[in-house]
Amino acid sequence: MKIAILLYEGFTALDCIGPYEVLSRLPGADLAFVAARAGVVTSDTGFLKITATRGIADVDAADILLVPGGPGDQGVTADAATLEWIRRLHERTTWTTSVCTGALILGAAGILQGLRATTHWASLDELRRYGAEPVKARAVESGKVVTAAGVSAGIDLALRLAARVAGDDFARAVQLGIEYDPDPPFDAGSPEKVPKELVDTLRGMLSSARAARAQSAA
Amino acid sequence: MKIAILLYEGFTALDCIGPYEVLSRLPGADLAFVAARAGVVTSDTGFLKITATRGIADVDAADILLVPGGPGDQGVTADAATLEWIRRLHERTTWTTSVCTGALILGAAGILQGLRATTHWASLDELRRYGAEPVKARAVESGKVVTAAGVSAGIDLALRLAARVAGDDFARAVQLGIEYDPDPPFDAGSPEKVPKELVDTLRGMLSSARAARAQSAA
Repeated sequence: MKIAILLYEGFTALDCIGPYEVLSRLPGADLAFVAARAGVVTSDTGFLKITATRGIADVDAADILLVPGGPGDQGVTADAATLEWIRRLHERTTWTTSVCTGALILGAAGILQGLRATTHWASLDELRRYGAEPVKARAVESGKVVTAAGVSAGIDLALRLAARVAGDDFARAVQLGIEYDPDPPFDAGSPEKVPKELVDTLRGMLSSARAARAQSAA
Repeated sequence: MKIAILLYEGFTALDCIGPYEVLSRLPGADLAFVAARAGVVTSDTGFLKITATRGIADVDAADILLVPGGPGDQGVTADAATLEWIRRLHERTTWTTSVCTGALILGAAGILQGLRATTHWASLDELRRYGAEPVKARAVESGKVVTAAGVSAGIDLALRLAARVAGDDFARAVQLGIEYDPDPPFDAGSPEKVPKELVDTLRGMLSSARAARAQSAA
């Protein structure tokens, strides 16, 4: 079971570490963090450095491909070589998956054309640009393409995948192993659950962060 | 706001990346991954390498100290220099925190003596060894020492801390930002929610993994 998780400058760490924590425990899992070139990659906050042990040139197939989101997604959607690599792997994957704005990367690779898909709530409309039909859901399965909502949704996505790959009981064992019995102190994880002002403020902040990131990349 | 997250060989990644994703967004956050020596540290699965940008000799204070768990905890509980560093930082922290079996490391550092504390469900009884009173809860606050349950519980812990540090509205904004609106496909995240056989099987697997880890470290 080969699992490839894409990394790029400015990725959001929980997008990939949530699923990694689940998928790495699948029977026979052989999981690699892959970037355009092997080496150290820095997350969106600048505080975290993860090693991509392989470059895209070293990986020609995966059973599960997972593309995380983050403000750096714009660098990837402009990187023809990485998009081509995603398309090439997708031809033979069992599951092609994304978390958060990783869906926009799948979209830029042409994979979401005509499919129902989801992403971070603040970026949902952007999916239309790639011919996808936006769906507000924790995870959306369209054939072998499974997209998840923002950041923390990757854990739920990965448990669903684990159940499909190794059975419900196996997925339950992993859930128990990572003690995933969520108990957030607030019920504020989705825009319909908080005051509109908070949604607007956050949408503005995320949009500014993305704009700043695009400018610094240019 | 200085935040130090301890890394060590054999740490469980989600234990620290869940809290990192929340705490790195606190106002003025200056977050560092710290290990006995600066450099690349490998997680318990062997698939993930994170850079500790600082060694313990380079960090003499933190407002928030977070100690993750993982089968490698046994290496740390035998490492006098790191335990001494934890004790030294703890004297001046605002919050000293752990996720999962990170609590056993705090215990080995002498910090849990006489305190109520929690850890991964399969290790709860081990807390007594360090004079702590085990409590089955998502997070337990004993003065400035806050311990969380297994792996994914670090996200809930960090949101509670964010609320204490920056207010409830700020914590809600972070929760919305990471779209933490959990929707696992199963309700299997706690031992009382699954068949006893599954609990016993998993307890056996985790215990074997810890034993193997202890042997390879010795």
